[in-house]
Amino acid sequence: MAEAEETIPVKSADKLFEEFREVSVTEFFRKNKAHLGYAGKLRSLTTIIHEVVTNSLDACEEAGILPEVTVEIKQMGEDHYRFICQDNGPGIPRKHIEGVFGQMLAGTKFHRNVQLRGQQGIGVAGVTLYCQMTTGKPMRIRTSTGDGTVNDIKLLIDVSKNKADIIETGTYSEYWRGTELEGEVKGVQFTLREGGPYEYIRRTAVANPHAKIVFIDPEGRKTIFNRATNTVIKPPQPQKQHPKGMDVDQFITLAKVTEARRVSSFLMSDFSRISAAKVAEIQELVNFDMKKNPHRLQWAEAEEIVKAFEKVEFMAPPTEGLSPLGEEIIRKSILNVLEPEFEAVVTRKPTVHSGGIPFQVEVAIAYGGKAGRILGDGQTKSEVMRFANRAPLLFDAGGCALTEAVQSIDWKRYDIKDFENSPVTLVVNLVSTHVPYTSAGKQSVASDEEVVKEIRFALMDVGRKFQLYHSHMRHEIEKEAKLNTLLKYSTELAPALARLIEKDGDSPKLLKALDHLIREKLRMEDLEQEMEEGSEEELPQETFVEDKEA
Amino acid sequence: MAEAEETIPVKSADKLFEEFREVSVTEFFRKNKAHLGYAGKLRSLTTIIHEVVTNSLDACEEAGILPEVTVEIKQMGEDHYRFICQDNGPGIPRKHIEGVFGQMLAGTKFHRNVQLRGQQGIGVAGVTLYCQMTTGKPMRIRTSTGDGTVNDIKLLIDVSKNKADIIETGTYSEYWRGTELEGEVKGVQFTLREGGPYEYIRRTAVANPHAKIVFIDPEGRKTIFNRATNTVIKPPQPQKQHPKGMDVDQFITLAKVTEARRVSSFLMSDFSRISAAKVAEIQELVNFDMKKNPHRLQWAEAEEIVKAFEKVEFMAPPTEGLSPLGEEIIRKSILNVLEPEFEAVVTRKPTVHSGGIPFQVEVAIAYGGKAGRILGDGQTKSEVMRFANRAPLLFDAGGCALTEAVQSIDWKRYDIKDFENSPVTLVVNLVSTHVPYTSAGKQSVASDEEVVKEIRFALMDVGRKFQLYHSHMRHEIEKEAKLNTLLKYSTELAPALARLIEKDGDSPKLLKALDHLIREKLRMEDLEQEMEEGSEEELPQETFVEDKEA
Repeated sequence: MAEAEETIPVKSADKLFEEFREVSVTEFFRKNKAHLGYAGKLRSLTTIIHEVVTNSLDACEEAGILPEVTVEIKQMGEDHYRFICQDNGPGIPRKHIEGVFGQMLAGTKFHRNVQLRGQQGIGVAGVTLYCQMTTGKPMRIRTSTGDGTVNDIKLLIDVSKNKADIIETGTYSEYWRGTELEGEVKGVQFTLREGGPYEYIRRTAVANPHAKIVFIDPEGRKTIFNRATNTVIKPPQPQKQHPKGMDVDQFITLAKVTEARRVSSFLMSDFSRISAAKVAEIQELVNFDMKKNPHRLQWAEAEEIVKAFEKVEFMAPPTEGLSPLGEEIIRKSILNVLEPEFEAVVTRKPTVHSGGIPFQVEVAIAYGGKAGRILGDGQTKSEVMRFANRAPLLFDAGGCALTEAVQSIDWKRYDIKDFENSPVTLVVNLVSTHVPYTSAGKQSVASDEEVVKEIRFALMDVGRKFQLYHSHMRHEIEKEAKLNTLLKYSTELAPALARLIEKDGDSPKLLKALDHLIREKLRMEDLEQEMEEGSEEELPQETFVEDKEA
Repeated sequence: MAEAEETIPVKSADKLFEEFREVSVTEFFRKNKAHLGYAGKLRSLTTIIHEVVTNSLDACEEAGILPEVTVEIKQMGEDHYRFICQDNGPGIPRKHIEGVFGQMLAGTKFHRNVQLRGQQGIGVAGVTLYCQMTTGKPMRIRTSTGDGTVNDIKLLIDVSKNKADIIETGTYSEYWRGTELEGEVKGVQFTLREGGPYEYIRRTAVANPHAKIVFIDPEGRKTIFNRATNTVIKPPQPQKQHPKGMDVDQFITLAKVTEARRVSSFLMSDFSRISAAKVAEIQELVNFDMKKNPHRLQWAEAEEIVKAFEKVEFMAPPTEGLSPLGEEIIRKSILNVLEPEFEAVVTRKPTVHSGGIPFQVEVAIAYGGKAGRILGDGQTKSEVMRFANRAPLLFDAGGCALTEAVQSIDWKRYDIKDFENSPVTLVVNLVSTHVPYTSAGKQSVASDEEVVKEIRFALMDVGRKFQLYHSHMRHEIEKEAKLNTLLKYSTELAPALARLIEKDGDSPKLLKALDHLIREKLRMEDLEQEMEEGSEEELPQETFVEDKEA
């Protein structure tokens, strides 16, 4: 304890705390708008487009609808734009409109364990907030569930209360289903460059081949990204928690609200992959009777169970809650857009990160062709396209676990000598029922050990595939060179031999024979090498260096 | 509007929205703990230390007390620690304890325009939350305002309600003033490496020479960072808003709550640097009578005023609200810690960023000596030490405006050929009444145009100072080389001359004469050059490339 000392407070504690007051979550984000991605003219507009498109795609997928989304951006003046986003989603029931667009943390779905792009209950209300902050104008929402009634509403957010402030409300009759948002924003700028709305939409189209997306830019140019597939994607399903990675706090929270009467039945009913046999295994590892009522579980007991979870082996989490792109779709997108010389795709098995949260990693490499980023001066640099739950991440690459994983790979091992300056595009897609974003702006994934590890494994895998391709290519080139050298000698050797055997006329015949011998010899060498390679053990795995936090 | 189409929703809108529910801000951050900086074992522990130290230093400075802070970290088991933070601050009145430690956004001071390290009303309640999430144990708070009564309280946070949950409360008699926090956390790891608590405290000491900080690490090693100055630093003062950079939303918000009866008097009373003469200038630029009641101000009218603000020239904001380190203190710290061959410090004038928020930039360069980062293999790399309001920023360097500014400088222009691999330490300190952090974890500053610009100017300035030093050093080295060459020739020349004049014995005399001539000649060259430099115009300013958002 610091002793009472000579300095006399200029202000007493009571005086200091007079200035304290409570604020709403909306007020917090108004002051800290950068947390939501509203920083800079370019990024702010992309953030708006990201939030509204994310919302539309999520709604369609949850309802099992093939998405059709139209985004239009109109310029109203200097740094002043209007945007319209229409979808064919399920529509929003009247009583939920205020919660979704006019209140933060109201329309939250993150208590459910399901893979969605949006998961925070902040994004689209943040759009309303940012429009109102920059123009004072309300968001207009027209929405219908397809029952013949369209709700047409204009609303603002009452910032101090974090509640919707309805400016106009009305209905009219029309038969369609979906939602149309319209808003006005100032202090932003449209650009076709990287980081702008067009690039955002383009990458969204790459990762969502089941969606039709139409984009109309401020010059009136219309780009239609047509569907590559007409299959409705399986709606993501809420999942039970997986025992691995669960923390004690979450476990206690679940135990408090379960309807199960015993800890044992709680484990079987509320978790995935826990059978009666697994319960018996767990009982062996804990020092209390699991017939106990879960509502009366103590922290120490919960801790024992969580520790037991770590020791017991469980099946990997079910994949129903996850909706990866799949190798075929990624390959199709890559071939279509990048026309590479070589491509490889790896989809890892689902696993869990902190808190029993299932996730899955997909990685692709494209080399040559249009892969990489081409700079103004014609130089080609490598490029990393990051996605989380199929939504492109365009900003904050520096602090992102996906970037970290890419940078931690020693690409030279995989025959990419100078990764930075190679014509390489890496696609990294992380799908999870809860992506651990570093901030509410959702452009960067926190450096979770398990996530980084999985991405690294996938990257090493595509790296090895590239290496095989590359060494094959190198071998082909070397073989060609060898052949040419030998053939060159044989053109000199053949007439010399003919002269020696005093049959100059046989020179062409001898040349042909030599040619045949050379080719046959090289073919045999190839076969031997292939057989050797076949008998080889798997290529060495790069060991993962843990604790890369610093 | 999307037409009604063939795909039938799998789930109706009503069904989908059944799953919606409202969550508290604490629940939001529990799920998104990475937003608060709780990501990874190492960073999580540093985040806790950052939050508690920040809180202590802010409290002391606001109360006008010379801070004395003791931080102790004890290891309790694997990845399990207890921390204690004591300060001699003003103490916390009983009725505010719940708000500060057990509720998010309750003890918020960010409605005030004042420079503090903490500004979000989330940090220290976040510590309570994280401890409870990982150990289930409450935070213990002992605090007294010096009135002879110590409050001794243990509390948790009721996450669903965002309210404190008091576990134990009591008082005892003892005469001291200050606060002692004690908590337990699991799933974290102590390290002496960069990014760890020790490095955090060390950098805090560098930037807070008026504070005495004692740190006791888990091995029991005690480090005392003594005060470099005994002057109580001027407590940061809340400030009126400056008109520059103000946005319309903020302006309207202020207009709604002002006690002024006319817009004109509102401008003079609620803003800094607006005189009657300035009001007259503004009146010329707007199309309505500023005798109007500010409570009835329309958006369009407010917008006219904000636009007028942009056109009118105002004095820079008053600096009372800002408390920079000052060149002397930075120089002292740098000389003390880095012992460089060369150092230069630049403190820019205060200016404003978005929303009329005053800020100020300080930059220092240290070259040679112990400057730079020395790697394991003995190689030296350049190092950037980032601070915001004297609090060190150890993480998320990638997405930070301070890093961006450093990287945008072409250091070759300033004779630092290979910046990455040079023995250079740059110190960048941003002080502001509101630092635009990118997330609640407060380790990275959003890329605000004005902020980046100011940092760049300061960096170019220290760059030019380095360049002068470097060219001077180079000149000295060249002069030395020239001298040595000439002297070498003169030792041959002297005897040769002596022989020619047939006075071999004069050789030493001739050598001496030559030596004198050479030195005199070089001295004259120097003088000429100095005179030339004196008449030179200022060195060319590097032009700032705007719109670097992408």
